[in-house]
Amino acid sequence: MLEQLKEIVYQANMELPKRGLVTFTWGNVSAMDRESGYLVIKPSGVDYETMKAEDMVVVDLEGNHIEGRYNPSSDTATHIELYKKYPEIGGIVHTHSTWATSWAQAGRSIPLYGTTHADYFYGPIPCARSLTEEEINGEYEKNTGLVIIETLTEGNISPTSMPGILLTNHGPFTWGKDASQAVHNAVVLEEVAKMACHTEMINSQVKPAPQVIADKHYLRKHGANAYYGQSKGN
Amino acid sequence: MLEQLKEIVYQANMELPKRGLVTFTWGNVSAMDRESGYLVIKPSGVDYETMKAEDMVVVDLEGNHIEGRYNPSSDTATHIELYKKYPEIGGIVHTHSTWATSWAQAGRSIPLYGTTHADYFYGPIPCARSLTEEEINGEYEKNTGLVIIETLTEGNISPTSMPGILLTNHGPFTWGKDASQAVHNAVVLEEVAKMACHTEMINSQVKPAPQVIADKHYLRKHGANAYYGQSKGN
Amino acid sequence: MLEQLKEIVYQANMELPKRGLVTFTWGNVSAMDRESGYLVIKPSGVDYETMKAEDMVVVDLEGNHIEGRYNPSSDTATHIELYKKYPEIGGIVHTHSTWATSWAQAGRSIPLYGTTHADYFYGPIPCARSLTEEEINGEYEKNTGLVIIETLTEGNISPTSMPGILLTNHGPFTWGKDASQAVHNAVVLEEVAKMACHTEMINSQVKPAPQVIADKHYLRKHGANAYYGQSKGN
Amino acid sequence: MLEQLKEIVYQANMELPKRGLVTFTWGNVSAMDRESGYLVIKPSGVDYETMKAEDMVVVDLEGNHIEGRYNPSSDTATHIELYKKYPEIGGIVHTHSTWATSWAQAGRSIPLYGTTHADYFYGPIPCARSLTEEEINGEYEKNTGLVIIETLTEGNISPTSMPGILLTNHGPFTWGKDASQAVHNAVVLEEVAKMACHTEMINSQVKPAPQVIADKHYLRKHGANAYYGQSKGN
Repeated sequence: MLEQLKEIVYQANMELPKRGLVTFTWGNVSAMDRESGYLVIKPSGVDYETMKAEDMVVVDLEGNHIEGRYNPSSDTATHIELYKKYPEIGGIVHTHSTWATSWAQAGRSIPLYGTTHADYFYGPIPCARSLTEEEINGEYEKNTGLVIIETLTEGNISPTSMPGILLTNHGPFTWGKDASQAVHNAVVLEEVAKMACHTEMINSQVKPAPQVIADKHYLRKHGANAYYGQSKGN
Repeated sequence: MLEQLKEIVYQANMELPKRGLVTFTWGNVSAMDRESGYLVIKPSGVDYETMKAEDMVVVDLEGNHIEGRYNPSSDTATHIELYKKYPEIGGIVHTHSTWATSWAQAGRSIPLYGTTHADYFYGPIPCARSLTEEEINGEYEKNTGLVIIETLTEGNISPTSMPGILLTNHGPFTWGKDASQAVHNAVVLEEVAKMACHTEMINSQVKPAPQVIADKHYLRKHGANAYYGQSKGN
Repeated sequence: MLEQLKEIVYQANMELPKRGLVTFTWGNVSAMDRESGYLVIKPSGVDYETMKAEDMVVVDLEGNHIEGRYNPSSDTATHIELYKKYPEIGGIVHTHSTWATSWAQAGRSIPLYGTTHADYFYGPIPCARSLTEEEINGEYEKNTGLVIIETLTEGNISPTSMPGILLTNHGPFTWGKDASQAVHNAVVLEEVAKMACHTEMINSQVKPAPQVIADKHYLRKHGANAYYGQSKGN
Repeated sequence: MLEQLKEIVYQANMELPKRGLVTFTWGNVSAMDRESGYLVIKPSGVDYETMKAEDMVVVDLEGNHIEGRYNPSSDTATHIELYKKYPEIGGIVHTHSTWATSWAQAGRSIPLYGTTHADYFYGPIPCARSLTEEEINGEYEKNTGLVIIETLTEGNISPTSMPGILLTNHGPFTWGKDASQAVHNAVVLEEVAKMACHTEMINSQVKPAPQVIADKHYLRKHGANAYYGQSKGN
C-alpha cells in the first residue's frame, strides 16, 4: 500500500541526518496522499541506520493505524492537524535542528534579516505561544498542531508563504507541497536561524530588512512573475 | 576474561571520536560486570587509532588491576566510586566535549530550556562544586567521584533521571544502564549544552521551560506510561 | 563555444559546495572572456549535483543570451556591471556563505583585525549601502552591481586591492583575475568574517589592527616587492 | 640530505589541514636537526594537495638556503629565532587556526579555565605585545621571533611548560620536542581557545581556575611524578 510514497518518505527522512538536521531519531517526515486520505510517516524511535522504506507507517486522518508493523512517530497527531487544516500541504518535517531549536527555546520569532530568508519565508518566522499546562497534559501532540494553526490564523499567514514555524521550548516544524520540499525548507530554516543569530551578535542594534526586500525576493522566486530558476522564463 | 564486555567497551570508546566528542585521548568509557564485580575500562593515554578490544583493562572495585597489559584510565577511581554507589549504573563516560566542557568551565548548571533536554535529563543538569585544595591534592580522582555523588545526594537526584553531570573547571561525566546508553547520553548532553548556550545568546532574558514540559517529556519517554518508541505501545 | 571557459566556470562553481560556501543553489560563479566580449555563468537554480560543464550559459555584456539551454543566473546583471566597469576583473563569485552573509545582514563592514585579512583585503571589507525602494523595484540586479561600483568609487578603492564586498541584507560578492581566484577570495572572506565576529566576542572593545599591519601584509604578498610564495624570489 | 626529517616535516604539515587548522597554505611546520644545525621547513605558498616530502626546504640557523628547489616559508626567520634561543625545542608550528587567531586578533591571553588547558599549558597562554612600526617595517619575521622570546623571558616562562603563544593581530605559534608534538599542541591550543571563548559566553563573570588545578593537571601529565598514560606507571 502506497509503496511509492513510502519510498519517498523514507528518502526524505534519510535526508535529515545527511543534512545534519537530526541527532539519533530526533526528527520525522511525513507525506500525505490526498486521494486515499492516508498519510505515510516515520516509525517512532527507529534508528536511521537500520530503517527501511517498508518500515514507514500508514495512518488515516483520524490517527488510525492502517498499515505497518511499527508505531508511528509520537508526533503523528501534530502532522494530522496540519494536513486536515491545510489541503495545500503535502509534506511535513519536524526536527530538533540546532539553531532553529535554539530560537524556539529562546521563544523568539526569527526576524527577516536578509534575502536568504526572504527567498523562502515571507516575513518573520513565527514562534508559537507556549502551550498551557492543560494543553500539555491533555492531547499534547494534537494541541501542538492546533497552536501552529492558531499562530498562522491569528497572524493571517498562509502556510504557502510561511512554510515553517517554531514551537516555544521545543523546536521547528516545516512543510511544503511534498516531503522533499518540506525537507528543503527545514534545511533553509536551519541556515536562516544560524545566520540570524550571528547577525545579532555582529550588530546588537540591527533592524529587520525593509519590507521591499521581503516583497522583492519572495516574489522573485514565487508567484506569477517569478524569474528565478528554469521553470518560469523572463 | 570478560571478552564480550571488552568488545562492548572498545566499541563504545570508538564511538566517542566518531561522534566528535573527543580530541586525541581525552575521553574514556567503562562498563561494569556486576556478577564478577569487575569493571572494564579504556587504557590511559592510548591512541584511538591503534587501540584494540584486547587493550581494555579489567579492574575491581578496590582499584586493583586484574587484567590487561596497560594502565587503566587515570580517571578509573572516579568510575569506581559511581559504580559502588549506584547499582543501577552499568556504563560511564567521561569526555572533554566542547560545549559541555564550556559549561563546566563556566561553573554553571545547564538550565532546562526545551524538550530535547527534557527527553533525557529530568531537570537542570547540575554542575558540581569545585573541589577543595585538599581534595585535589589528595585522592583527586576518587574525590571527583565523591563530589558527583554529593551533588546528586544533596539535590535528591536519582542517577536514572539525571544521567550526567558537569565538574567545575573540568568537563562532563554521563552514565546509563550500559556503556552504549552512557555514550548516547554523552552525545545528547553535548547537543543540549550547545543549544542552551545559543538559546541564551538569542535571548539573554530567557527563562527555563515550565516544569510541566520537564514532566511531560521525561515521562513520555521513561516510566510506566511512556509512549515514545516501539518497546511500549499505545 | 568557449568550451574551455565553461569547464573552468563549472569547476569553480563546484568548488563552492566543496568549500562549504553554498547550500542548495545559493551561489554562482562567472568568468569573462575579454576577447569575445562574452561571459560564462552558472545557470539559474540548477542543482550542483546534476550540473555539467555544458550547462554553463554564455551571455554578452548587454545581457543577451548567446548560448546554452538554460536561463543564466538571476544575478547575471550584477556580474555584467562589474565586468563592464573593471577590465582587470576576470571572474566573479556570489554566495550566501554563513559568516559573510551575517555581516551583510548586520549592515557592517568587516574591520581589519589581523594578518589573515590583510594578506588579501587591503583595508576593511566594505558593506554597501541599502538599495532604495526604487532601485529594488527597478532593475534590481543591475542596481546591485551599480551600488558595488558606487561603494568602491566613493571609497577610492581599487577592485584589485579589495576583491570583495558585502551587500546590506543580502550577502557577499568576490572577484579576481579569473574564476579560480574569485573563488579563492570567497573562501578567504568567509574565514575572515568568521574570525572577525569571534574577535569581537572575545574582546568587545577591540580596535582594528594598525595601518602598518595592513600595509606590510598586503604588500608582502602583492606588488613589486612581494616576497611570499614562489613566483617572486627574495 | 635529511630525507627522514623531510618526511617527518611533510607529514606534520599534512596533519594541519587534516585537523582543520589551515585554509589553503596558511600554516607551516618545521623541525630542527641539532646535529647538523639545519632545520627543515615547508616551502612558501605551495599547495598542500600537490606538496611532496622532497619539496621541504633545508636552511641553516643564519637563514641560508641549504637545499631544496623552493623558497622556504616566509616565516622561516621566526622559526630560526626560536630554535636559536631554545635548545629544548625540536619542532615549531604556525597556523591561522580560527579560534586561536581570534584570540590573537582580540589581543588577549587565553585564561586557564579548566583541565583541558592545564593538561598542556601551565598557565594562561600569553598574547605577545604588538610589534612597533619599526619592528614591522624592519626584519619583520625575525622580530616576530624576538617578541615571542621577550614575552616568555619577561614572564619567566619556560617553553616546555608553555608550548605556544599568540601574536597580536596575527595568530598562534606552538612548539614541542619534535614536529609531531608541536602539531599536537597546535590542535590542543585551537580546542582550548574555542572552549575559552564559549566559557566566557556562558558566564561573562567567570574567573580563571584556581592555581591548584593548574598545578595538579600539568604535573599529572608532566614531570617526575606524572601518572597519566603508559610511559610512567603508578
